[in-house]
Amino acid sequence: MPDVSSWAAMTTTDGRLLRGEQTRRAILERAAEIATVEGLEGLSIGRLAGELGVSKSGVFAHFGSKEELQLATIERAREVFIERVIEPALRERGLARLWAMCENRIAYAKARVFPGGCFFYAAEMEFGPRPGRVRDALRREKAAWWAWLVGTIERARDAGELEPTVDAEQLAFELDAFVGAANADALLDDDPVAFDRARAAMRARLRAVATDPERVG
Amino acid sequence: MPDVSSWAAMTTTDGRLLRGEQTRRAILERAAEIATVEGLEGLSIGRLAGELGVSKSGVFAHFGSKEELQLATIERAREVFIERVIEPALRERGLARLWAMCENRIAYAKARVFPGGCFFYAAEMEFGPRPGRVRDALRREKAAWWAWLVGTIERARDAGELEPTVDAEQLAFELDAFVGAANADALLDDDPVAFDRARAAMRARLRAVATDPERVG
Repeated sequence: MPDVSSWAAMTTTDGRLLRGEQTRRAILERAAEIATVEGLEGLSIGRLAGELGVSKSGVFAHFGSKEELQLATIERAREVFIERVIEPALRERGLARLWAMCENRIAYAKARVFPGGCFFYAAEMEFGPRPGRVRDALRREKAAWWAWLVGTIERARDAGELEPTVDAEQLAFELDAFVGAANADALLDDDPVAFDRARAAMRARLRAVATDPERVG
Repeated sequence: MPDVSSWAAMTTTDGRLLRGEQTRRAILERAAEIATVEGLEGLSIGRLAGELGVSKSGVFAHFGSKEELQLATIERAREVFIERVIEPALRERGLARLWAMCENRIAYAKARVFPGGCFFYAAEMEFGPRPGRVRDALRREKAAWWAWLVGTIERARDAGELEPTVDAEQLAFELDAFVGAANADALLDDDPVAFDRARAAMRARLRAVATDPERVG
């Protein structure tokens, strides 16, 4: 990753001057959108430069290679996920935090923040079978998300808000599965009913193991 | 789709004579494998011809275009899914058929019949956001699967083996979600524990709504 201070200012084809950080961000936002529709493999430095009206060498100055661009796009998608899903949930504690996360994820997926649905589901299906740095980065992101989710369930359980017999990893798997399925269904069917099903499934699953079911939904 | 009787016999580079149906099948089996790793968009008539040692024009004679090849590959993947998941379940009835389907799907996903995991999950994530004939074909396959799954649940419920209050579409969504999540997790993590979690989730979900839980698993 190049040092921020070394990013050059660039002039766009319509004469606007873009500072490095601003250019980088614009490139990555467009890259994340393209990646959810055409895959991370569909990213092209030439195409991004053309669409954003900056020079190819300018994009190269930021990323150096397609793989670096793919890795930086994953980082940008993580930031968006944290802003939309995690940070608002952190205002709550225990079971309320867990349920807020569920609601935020449904809202985030339903809003189609990325045109091809959830960035990470798309990227995982694409790079899951392809060993290399991109897959390694996706594994790290997923491990971080998994640790957060399991930890959040454990804290709700330890606070006495979930039954003490709850298997945190099993519950994490199931909650996660519902959003993934809704994302895939909604993409293919153009039908948001899948998000309602996912929300109903998460709610029923949490109410079944909450010591006070009224605190869910 | 060309008429079977018109498929020409072709000589491979090592001198074997392949009859049309045999060649077509060999092409589609390799195509389905490639598609789960590199995407349906990653299919190339030239590459398939090279790998299978047949002429490019021979592959063209069968499919005519990349899109026809993609559509035929989807049909082949459906045949494999029916052979592995549906047909063995049809030996059972009611709840036993539903549970057999669950077990077959887990076994099928776990066996990595295709190197990139479930063909349809990969294809749906890839073509879900891309309107066209390939997406239309995937929607038809999914609608057929969904109708079968919901119908199987309804029959088990009507036979009194599931609680009369069961929402068949909601249950279908949840059972499907667990396998999809396990498929994605196992691809990325190289860890089959996700399949055990999916099986445990399906079993618990069915036992919760079965009039005789002992009949599940």
